[in-house]
Amino acid sequence: MHTRYSAIFGLMALLVLAPAAARAANTAAAGRPAATKNRIVFQVTEDDSRKWNSILANLSNVQEELRQVDIAVVVIGPGLGMLKADALTANRVQDAMAAGVRFVACGNSMHAQGLTKDDMIDGIAYAKAGYVEVMRLQQQGWVYIRP
Amino acid sequence: MHTRYSAIFGLMALLVLAPAAARAANTAAAGRPAATKNRIVFQVTEDDSRKWNSILANLSNVQEELRQVDIAVVVIGPGLGMLKADALTANRVQDAMAAGVRFVACGNSMHAQGLTKDDMIDGIAYAKAGYVEVMRLQQQGWVYIRP
Amino acid sequence: MHTRYSAIFGLMALLVLAPAAARAANTAAAGRPAATKNRIVFQVTEDDSRKWNSILANLSNVQEELRQVDIAVVVIGPGLGMLKADALTANRVQDAMAAGVRFVACGNSMHAQGLTKDDMIDGIAYAKAGYVEVMRLQQQGWVYIRP
Repeated sequence: MHTRYSAIFGLMALLVLAPAAARAANTAAAGRPAATKNRIVFQVTEDDSRKWNSILANLSNVQEELRQVDIAVVVIGPGLGMLKADALTANRVQDAMAAGVRFVACGNSMHAQGLTKDDMIDGIAYAKAGYVEVMRLQQQGWVYIRP
Repeated sequence: MHTRYSAIFGLMALLVLAPAAARAANTAAAGRPAATKNRIVFQVTEDDSRKWNSILANLSNVQEELRQVDIAVVVIGPGLGMLKADALTANRVQDAMAAGVRFVACGNSMHAQGLTKDDMIDGIAYAKAGYVEVMRLQQQGWVYIRP
Repeated sequence: MHTRYSAIFGLMALLVLAPAAARAANTAAAGRPAATKNRIVFQVTEDDSRKWNSILANLSNVQEELRQVDIAVVVIGPGLGMLKADALTANRVQDAMAAGVRFVACGNSMHAQGLTKDDMIDGIAYAKAGYVEVMRLQQQGWVYIRP
């Protein structure tokens, strides 16, 4: 009896603990999500069209250098002008969207500036609070860049 | 004898290694602290009262949207004016403190500007080097936002 | 026979799984690199010599407070003036380099501004796209600070 029980214990140790250790290692790897995928969230908070153009050029450069990269641009407060339908940057923003960049406007900032979705470039995304969106993306492993 | 030793080995494997694997998994999970708690460190580095007011409004918006969030605001260099006792933003800073926001002034910046704690709003915290504080909070899993 | 096999299983469980669990724990710890080493990447993106001097002072303060810290300064777009051989900040940048700080100029920004390596301070490093360098350092666990 003792012999069989000990054999069972030995097997249980291998069968039960090996996958557990593997899961632990996987979870650990997941703690460094950037190793598997490049994801960057850019934050735009300034009312400066030269800066907007510079950032839009940077997005292209980043996409050019990296084979695969997800880019989100969260636009807050005075930065919102970049995403207005009548902005001088509208064409370049639409080009970036066509190239896969996701633009997100801060709803609180829009409300404070009396802007509605009709005032904005078609196809952009919206978040209630821009900084909460920035936080959530970072929590999901996106790298934060504040140009 | 062999039988008993092997039974002991089997049991040891289960009793010793199972908690070890569990600890490893917990440590891994701790590597992604944001999943369990929202913690944001905002950095204020500019001498711009309009920006200070905008940031203070953002703090309220973030607290309103998230059920639970810890917010720290580390104030460095030209940003220090925001935390001076005679600042126009003093009342709003005190309101934010009452709502749970922690403000931290950079001691090196204070020294460089000839400021003492007597010049500052009561109840704020102090760090020797503001950027070291920002680093430490990020190392502890706080999300970094630079408005 | 059963007795011996079970003894072997018990031993295998200890010998094989203990190192695996240890590796898992190490990988998990690596997911929080800051716990073991302080590494900070500063980003300079503005054409403002007062700000450059302020940042250079901050670097000294950070090095003074922390026993061990790796510091990289990635300089992009209008910030590039800080790293030009004829910049007023050139001496202080060289002092910081002598103190172990690594400066990295954005190659795309240099190209856009018609700058070559001959225009820059000797001994600085170069990256093709500055923001990709900032991303990679963050992915490797460096703390991001945008002064």
